[in-house]
Amino acid sequence: MTLSFIIDILGTVAFTISGVLTAMRKKLDPFGILIIGFVTAVGGGTLRDVLIDANIAWMRNLTYMYVIIGSAIVAIILRKKLSYVRRSLFLFDTIGIALYTVVGVEKGISVGLPPLICVALGTMSACFGGVLRDILCNEIPIIFRKEIYATACILGGIAYFLLLKTPLLVDWVVVISGAIVITIRLLAVTFNLSFPTIYKEEENIRL
Amino acid sequence: MTLSFIIDILGTVAFTISGVLTAMRKKLDPFGILIIGFVTAVGGGTLRDVLIDANIAWMRNLTYMYVIIGSAIVAIILRKKLSYVRRSLFLFDTIGIALYTVVGVEKGISVGLPPLICVALGTMSACFGGVLRDILCNEIPIIFRKEIYATACILGGIAYFLLLKTPLLVDWVVVISGAIVITIRLLAVTFNLSFPTIYKEEENIRL
Amino acid sequence: MTLSFIIDILGTVAFTISGVLTAMRKKLDPFGILIIGFVTAVGGGTLRDVLIDANIAWMRNLTYMYVIIGSAIVAIILRKKLSYVRRSLFLFDTIGIALYTVVGVEKGISVGLPPLICVALGTMSACFGGVLRDILCNEIPIIFRKEIYATACILGGIAYFLLLKTPLLVDWVVVISGAIVITIRLLAVTFNLSFPTIYKEEENIRL
Repeated sequence: MTLSFIIDILGTVAFTISGVLTAMRKKLDPFGILIIGFVTAVGGGTLRDVLIDANIAWMRNLTYMYVIIGSAIVAIILRKKLSYVRRSLFLFDTIGIALYTVVGVEKGISVGLPPLICVALGTMSACFGGVLRDILCNEIPIIFRKEIYATACILGGIAYFLLLKTPLLVDWVVVISGAIVITIRLLAVTFNLSFPTIYKEEENIRL
Repeated sequence: MTLSFIIDILGTVAFTISGVLTAMRKKLDPFGILIIGFVTAVGGGTLRDVLIDANIAWMRNLTYMYVIIGSAIVAIILRKKLSYVRRSLFLFDTIGIALYTVVGVEKGISVGLPPLICVALGTMSACFGGVLRDILCNEIPIIFRKEIYATACILGGIAYFLLLKTPLLVDWVVVISGAIVITIRLLAVTFNLSFPTIYKEEENIRL
Repeated sequence: MTLSFIIDILGTVAFTISGVLTAMRKKLDPFGILIIGFVTAVGGGTLRDVLIDANIAWMRNLTYMYVIIGSAIVAIILRKKLSYVRRSLFLFDTIGIALYTVVGVEKGISVGLPPLICVALGTMSACFGGVLRDILCNEIPIIFRKEIYATACILGGIAYFLLLKTPLLVDWVVVISGAIVITIRLLAVTFNLSFPTIYKEEENIRL
């Protein structure tokens, strides 16, 4: 049981819960909730595995399915405890993208892709589950919202490769670059940070 | 010509017609109608074949393409006969998901996937064409609507595996589990059934 | 460096710019713009390569990534020069679908698919990037808009196979069928052309 597998499972838990919370806000029935949790959890990893032509992780290892069903049931039961739903949703989604970014980058490395492509792969696998969740729940896709989102994944992915050049152990590289994704996104939302705009005011009219 | 292939073709016909009806409600031009019919018909099967890394059925066997083009033309010509469009759309969509659920489960078994994964595969391949249809036609994805939808596929898939343990011939298992999907969905819509809600009234305010 | 590769790269440039322009209208931040440009550029080709089970072009050849990042930066810098944004977006999108239709048809031929399937493959790979762009940017998917869109790709694809039967060199077939896609779409939008409607007026009420 490697650190990567543990992180993959934790990401699955986080994304399942974020899917369940979104589906509950939409008042879906229990099976609908389970399906949205499932799609959110496996969407990114499935895209990643299809792109690198690997076996789809959740189809070959029943652990994912058990974890998803278990997390969904626990999240439904404990929904009263997760009472500030909006905030919990944000938290679990953020943990999910951090973990999936790292797993995606590592899978890219393991099939010999160059760093630039690994960063793209990590970012796509981190963001795709949430995009699917939002499309299926008829929300505005998360990537479109104002706060820094995919950007956090890109920067975390770049950090991964920079840290690899230091004498740090790979396990620490994994942990630190995941933490960077979470930190960037937490800071961005807490302080309402965004990039200095490239749009001048008069452009608002013309565009 | 096996029963599975016949069922696959019937599902293709049903989904093509459901796509054509949706596209006609949106007043698309004839080619647009054909494209939506095509995407609805092949979407689920394509996802299924990509996930199990099989050859994409419609790319290797021209029968599907002929059936799709033929069904689309017939549906356009007979659109006046299909006058209660909303009801016809519902009917063809329901037949489509029943047939694709069974085909998906069977394809999963044929590549050695465990039952739980086969049910997920059947459900995804049944629902994906309709989701694509609705996204492309800018409708609320069908999975989100109130009535029991994917749930019918999940229950039909579970029924398939339960029936396999009886002395019934496989062909009967196929027919009965398909009929279960249709029956559940018909009952759900006719009697406006849904799961007992897990949401208490005070939660409406908090969430 | 074959004509097909050059055309593929030009299509990548055109789609990247169309993605960047859409993302700038939505006021995304620089990384968000880059991501939408990337998804628009690689979406169609990725779908195509997944369907024919080929290596995903942009993952194996860094040229695509450099071209995408370069085009995105140039388009952001020159955004004032691209001042009639709506018109430029239309132009680059049209060039993109023309080039990708031809590349898609050729890739289909190279793996031995029959003409009908090649036309479908070319059309899907041409349209998918733009559909993803519009979904992620929360716009109505382009395929749904009134003007002839996918139809231009289908007709260009059919023209490719008809021209192959003439004594023309393949390079000319490529250029002419691409030009046909562009011409059809330009004419359709300029003169607000559409198919003669199949909907009679009284149908408006019934449907």
